[in-house]
Amino acid sequence: MVNMSTEKNKVNIGVASAKGFVTRKKQQEDVNALIAGVLAGKKTALARAITFIESTSAKHQEFADTVLKACLPHSGNSIRIGITGVPGAGKSTFIEALGNLLITKGHKVAVLAVDPTSSISHGSILGDKTRMGSLGMNANAFIRPSASGGSLGGVARKTRESIVLCEAAGLDVILVETVGVGQSDFAVHGMTDFFLLLKLAGAGDELQGIKRGIMEMADAILINKADGQNIQAAKEARIAFAKALHLYPQKENGWSPKVNLCSALQNTGIVEAWQVLEEYFTHVKENGSFQENRKSQHIFWLRQTIENRLKDDFYGDALVKAYFDSVVKKMHSGAISSFQAADELLKIYRSK
Amino acid sequence: MVNMSTEKNKVNIGVASAKGFVTRKKQQEDVNALIAGVLAGKKTALARAITFIESTSAKHQEFADTVLKACLPHSGNSIRIGITGVPGAGKSTFIEALGNLLITKGHKVAVLAVDPTSSISHGSILGDKTRMGSLGMNANAFIRPSASGGSLGGVARKTRESIVLCEAAGLDVILVETVGVGQSDFAVHGMTDFFLLLKLAGAGDELQGIKRGIMEMADAILINKADGQNIQAAKEARIAFAKALHLYPQKENGWSPKVNLCSALQNTGIVEAWQVLEEYFTHVKENGSFQENRKSQHIFWLRQTIENRLKDDFYGDALVKAYFDSVVKKMHSGAISSFQAADELLKIYRSK
Repeated sequence: MVNMSTEKNKVNIGVASAKGFVTRKKQQEDVNALIAGVLAGKKTALARAITFIESTSAKHQEFADTVLKACLPHSGNSIRIGITGVPGAGKSTFIEALGNLLITKGHKVAVLAVDPTSSISHGSILGDKTRMGSLGMNANAFIRPSASGGSLGGVARKTRESIVLCEAAGLDVILVETVGVGQSDFAVHGMTDFFLLLKLAGAGDELQGIKRGIMEMADAILINKADGQNIQAAKEARIAFAKALHLYPQKENGWSPKVNLCSALQNTGIVEAWQVLEEYFTHVKENGSFQENRKSQHIFWLRQTIENRLKDDFYGDALVKAYFDSVVKKMHSGAISSFQAADELLKIYRSK
Repeated sequence: MVNMSTEKNKVNIGVASAKGFVTRKKQQEDVNALIAGVLAGKKTALARAITFIESTSAKHQEFADTVLKACLPHSGNSIRIGITGVPGAGKSTFIEALGNLLITKGHKVAVLAVDPTSSISHGSILGDKTRMGSLGMNANAFIRPSASGGSLGGVARKTRESIVLCEAAGLDVILVETVGVGQSDFAVHGMTDFFLLLKLAGAGDELQGIKRGIMEMADAILINKADGQNIQAAKEARIAFAKALHLYPQKENGWSPKVNLCSALQNTGIVEAWQVLEEYFTHVKENGSFQENRKSQHIFWLRQTIENRLKDDFYGDALVKAYFDSVVKKMHSGAISSFQAADELLKIYRSK
């Protein structure tokens, strides 16, 4: 734990509390108490700090920034696992089974989610906490639904900052769930050390339904609901997936993706899934690619944030907005090329 | 042919000629003559106009812009075929065989290339024109090596603008070759109507060497050098590729990619390859996806150009350059998050 009275954390921020604006001194005490609570591993403090991160109020964001800066030196000591799969693949049941296993092994588990499709009021995944009843009640687990509203970029940023806080709070396995539809998978892949694809054994053609690029990112494929009458189909799916994975180029870190079976409901194959994860982390920590990957993720998010902001500013510019459609129309009519259209819009943007 | 004396083309531009600066009137006559030459289908005029497009001189670019604007209304009436394959796949021999076939069918053929790896003096692909000897000498063919130097974005823009000029010159089949290594394939895919992957039948494991995403883009795979003792291996490769293609999701335009054999050297399978192309173009023109695709390509290049320019301006900014490394260092040390690092750099960028 760090000493909360260091100069570093003595910043003055104005935070709107439920009781109205509080004094500077009180605010300072508030943020210090919150940081201390997070670092002491208090779930309520962690939840409150994440709420500030998710808030759109400028004052809350300033508050969140201070907490984040204090937590950063205490973060990074975890393994971050991304989990994807279409709705119905049994992600929640699997996460609960894996989470409970990890806790018996002495780990502290965070479950976060990236779901930009979630509504304003509730995340659509992890929103229904009853789906992870036993895990949610465990003192060594922290479950948080996806930040809601906003763009994927915004949601991803909030989740990534929440990971920092969870790690500072001593949680050492971070499970990040995603909806398995499109870009959010890439975002989760970009913030985790291991990417797990959960699949179901269906009636043939298992490979068809997978979105482009998802299978290439997978470090392991786990075929869930391999129980009862499904076992034979699951075994066949395993062979099909293993063959399909063989078509992709070798991963740079030297890891060969694995395909396993499990039944989260019957709690079979979970221990074996964890063994694959342990094998992976031994492999990437030994050959240095674990740290390398995290470093490139930092650079990736730095560039992503910058470039998204530049684009948002351009396309959100009042003048650009006013002229965009007419320039596109001219381009589609064949009067100007796409490059000339770009030149025109950039000239308009810079005319201020 | 358009009337070159219309008001539209009477723009005043200063062009530095080999003889020094010429008068306004002379310049006007020059540009009008060049435009007239291109529209009359004169190869020398076309070559000269493309040289202006490839020039980095601001005055030449202004000249090129005028020519381009005059040509745009006369462009678009062609089919654009992207051709990729690793060095040694026999692209040049294939292009020559296909080009000669097309000319006997009454087409006029342009051969362009995108190769950002090419040196300053000569394009590395299509540079050696003797490789396409018989095609190059044909009055109905126009062969141009890749624009050299500069970024992929720059080379791609020049190739795309060259396509416009070729079409305005009456060339109705545009073949765009690429080196088959990485991003240039995506660029060529983004400027053509049909994407052809040329492969060799090797000793098994044909699928392994293909770069990520390339096979997904292919509208057809052609296994070249299917002659002599290679025939059996080529037939096996055909089955393997057809199976692999089956794993990808259906293309939005409803086309199912085809796998065929050919021997460009022995001139076998070229007629059949052209039949596949004709079948494709009938299909996409009937269901409207041909025009839809070209429209989205315009939008794609518009956005690409804008976003690349925004990024270039940011990363090329003197202040950003001066602070970038130290901010990244702070981020890697864990003092600030990647998002906070982005905030810092954007603040520096906007401080002017």
